[in-house]
Order: sequence, then C-alpha cells, then structure tokens
Amino acid sequence: MADRDWPGCARALKAVVLDLCGVLYESGEGDTVAIPGSVEAVNRLKSSDLQLRFCTNETQACRDKFVAKLQVAGFDISVSEVFSPAPAAVSVLKERGLRPHLLVHDGLLPEFDSLDKTDPNCVVIGDAAEKFSYQNLNDAFRVLIGLEKPVLFSLGQGRYYKETNGLTLDVGVYMKALEYACDLEAEVIGKPSPMFFQSVLNDMGLQPHEVLMIGDDLVNDVGGAQHCGMKGVQVRTGKYSFAENVNTISPWKQFLVQPAQPLFSPPWSF
Amino acid sequence: MADRDWPGCARALKAVVLDLCGVLYESGEGDTVAIPGSVEAVNRLKSSDLQLRFCTNETQACRDKFVAKLQVAGFDISVSEVFSPAPAAVSVLKERGLRPHLLVHDGLLPEFDSLDKTDPNCVVIGDAAEKFSYQNLNDAFRVLIGLEKPVLFSLGQGRYYKETNGLTLDVGVYMKALEYACDLEAEVIGKPSPMFFQSVLNDMGLQPHEVLMIGDDLVNDVGGAQHCGMKGVQVRTGKYSFAENVNTISPWKQFLVQPAQPLFSPPWSF
Repeated sequence: MADRDWPGCARALKAVVLDLCGVLYESGEGDTVAIPGSVEAVNRLKSSDLQLRFCTNETQACRDKFVAKLQVAGFDISVSEVFSPAPAAVSVLKERGLRPHLLVHDGLLPEFDSLDKTDPNCVVIGDAAEKFSYQNLNDAFRVLIGLEKPVLFSLGQGRYYKETNGLTLDVGVYMKALEYACDLEAEVIGKPSPMFFQSVLNDMGLQPHEVLMIGDDLVNDVGGAQHCGMKGVQVRTGKYSFAENVNTISPWKQFLVQPAQPLFSPPWSF
Repeated sequence: MADRDWPGCARALKAVVLDLCGVLYESGEGDTVAIPGSVEAVNRLKSSDLQLRFCTNETQACRDKFVAKLQVAGFDISVSEVFSPAPAAVSVLKERGLRPHLLVHDGLLPEFDSLDKTDPNCVVIGDAAEKFSYQNLNDAFRVLIGLEKPVLFSLGQGRYYKETNGLTLDVGVYMKALEYACDLEAEVIGKPSPMFFQSVLNDMGLQPHEVLMIGDDLVNDVGGAQHCGMKGVQVRTGKYSFAENVNTISPWKQFLVQPAQPLFSPPWSF
C-alpha cells in the first residue's frame, strides 16, 4: 500500500483501532503523560463518523486502572472501548477448565480473582517486569515441567517496549525462555493473535478491510492487523524511534506502510 | 549402537571424558557430595590404560575453586584435566579483541580478570542463577541493542539441571530470551559446541572414535559428543531421572545409547 493510496483508502474506512502505549502516551514511572497531539487526535476521531476502539497488550494493571489514568491524562476513553489480554485469557481459562499459576504484575492479579488457582494445571505469564526474578521464573518452570501436558499462556509476545528511561524487555522474551526450557509452544493471547483482533471486529460488527489499526509495533500492531486483513500503520512515536537502528524488525519490513506518519499528522486528519 | 556392541566397543577406546555435575556429584547448596560409587569409578579409570579428561559446562565458579571442592569430596582430579567454558571464552574474546559485558555468577568473575571490560562491545552470559534478575537481563539487553553488530556469547546452552531441591533453569533459557529480544543467534561456548569437544581431543592427541563421553545430558553431553564422532553414553543419575517424564528430550532420543548404565556399573568396569 503506497502513499498515493491515501486518502482514497481513508475514505473507505469505517473504524480505527488504536494501540495505547507509544501511540497515546509513553510508558514510564509516575504519571501517564500524553504524547503531544494525541488527546486532540482521539477527539477528532470521536467526532468523526468512524468507530473507535483501543487495543493494547498492557498487562501491568487492570483495565479499569489504566483507563482511569488515561482519563486523568485528558483522553476521552471508557473501559468498554478497550481490549486487553487479561480478560480474554480469563475467558479462555474458564472455557477450558484451567487453573493458572500466575506470573504477572501485581497490578494485574485482580483480573484473575474469579478463577480457581489451587493445584495449577497451566501457567499464565504477562509483563511481570521486576517480578521476572530467577526464583519466579523457576517456579513457573517447575509447574510446567511437572505437568503431563504443560500449557503456557503468554499475554502478548512483544520483545521490548520503550519506557521513559530506555528500552525494556517485554513478556515475549520470557515466553521464549519458558518455551525453550520446557520444549513447548506457548498460546499467545493478545496482539498479534488473530483471535484477539477478531474479537474487536466482532464488537464493531465490521469486516477487516473496513478497519485501520495504528500502533508503534511492526510485529504486534501493524503485522498482526494486516495478517487479519485489516490495514495497519505504524506511528513514529514509541518504539518506532529505535526501530531503524536495530535488526529486530527485518522480517517485518514487508508490513511497513510507507511513509509512516505520526498520529497527529496527515493522513490522520479524518 | 546397541548393547550387544559392548564390550567390543569398550576395548577399542583410548580415552574417557566425564561430565561432572550429575555424573560425579549432584549439584546443590553446601558441600559437594559424591554420587555413590563415582569416586571409585574415577579411580578405576585412572588405574586403567585409558586417558581421562573432565568436560563440564560449570560456570558458577572458577575452575580452581570447583576442582578443589571435588578433591575435598575424594576425587583424584586436577585443574589441567578439566575443560570448562570460561577459559575457552576468554581465549575467543582475546583473539577477536572483544570487551565483554558480563552476566555471570559472581564466582566466575575472576576468570575474566585479564580482559578489558570498559565500553563493552559484546555480552557474555553464564549460569548466573540469582543474578538473572529482570534488571540484569535488561542491562545486558540494552548493551546488545545499542551495538551496531550485537554479539552474544553463551557459556553452554542447557535448559535446566538438577539441584538437590529440584530442577533449576540453566543459561540456555536466558540465551534464548536475549536471542529473541535482539533477533540474533548466540555463539555457544562449551558443550555441545564441536569446537569445545575438539579442544579436549586435541589435548589428548586422539581421534573422535577413540573417545567415549559420559554425561547425564542427552543434548549437551551425549548428542554433542556423537555429533563430533565420539561415542556418547548417558548415565542414570543427575537429570536423567527426570528425563523420562518430560517432553524436552524427544528430538534427541536418537542419540540415546540403550541401555544407559550408571557410571559405577558395567560396562564401566574397564
């Protein structure tokens, strides 16, 4: 999809799905600070004829908590518009009668309150950050290796993300660690899982080609969306600014829509 | 190689190479305790016409330190008979003019005293155990991602090993984590690297088919040795006792010499 396809392509759109971290704000300690122009961009989208949803792999906090922070930062956003991996994982676990051993951030634990966690028969990992200690990873490993049929769920598969103090390892790195330790393949819940994108499409009652995904991650946002038939565009904020200098994205260059534009610049003037 | 090949095969041997942990002793906190019969087995080998070497992926302590512990436990063993990854890594780093960022156990640090570690241009990881914190892994990641051509050395690639209190994650798990984070392939120094086995063969002046490797790890000991043309046999001590109950070894079953025998039982009565 070349630049000349705009704005014809934009006119055919019926919805936009936005990633959060790196698109609306930069991750970091302390208060959530909006990326300049992003609050206004969300307002413009909301006042247009387009449907709007938010699709994140955020797993350090419950959905109501991080949505509240975004509201404080000035965003017009509600919990029902936000799709994140933890509620999706709870649904899958309940359907399959699984009892998880959780290796997730303390802030995410309440999402799993409704599940039985005694005598675990699977492991769920999220972006646990400092809780990814040697001891905790070993505990998760021992649960898996002790199961006849080990089942590992990973809430996303990101390599790293950008915090205010630099790049930071994401859950996918620890997913790969446990996959190797136990010789298994994790089930990914969240972007870029097609099932996850489909749940957003179902909620809006739209076909993939009618929807544009905007994110800062070529693999999980842009690639994942395009794999489902959606359009995908990468912003130049968040981890984008590092991407040109690293060799992590080479397999995904095919997915790059050129030129990628910041959210608050054309072609985002819907 | 079926059981009926013994003892004909054994008569053609000119040397035996022994793994340490899981073969001579069980890993764990506190004193090194010999596996029953293993001190006598080493003595029998030493009194035979066979050459004897020890080949370990031990990277939690300097070679002189863990050899001293084995001597206290009753083993007739000297530093010059022991091959371990750290000294091999130091040679490679010096040859290539590399300055390492080290993520290794504190006990291993002195092995790298002779190297310049300012402004690192590569990362070396060993079995760092508790030092595999989120912060330390992130620090190593940031060094790698900041290099134009990131180079990662891994001292071994084991998945896990057995400690007295259960199975424990090994360095290979963290190697895979950093490989995924940075989209690179680590250079493995230690078993099962052919270069590592070749250095042992060179030291003895023997051809691969004249040498038998005995270990508890199907991938790193048995598979690695057989890949080089050596014979490989798995003991039933160490991690072997867990292997039948997990799915980690399936790709390596082809390497299994049946029946695998404990070190202190036939066909080890040379």
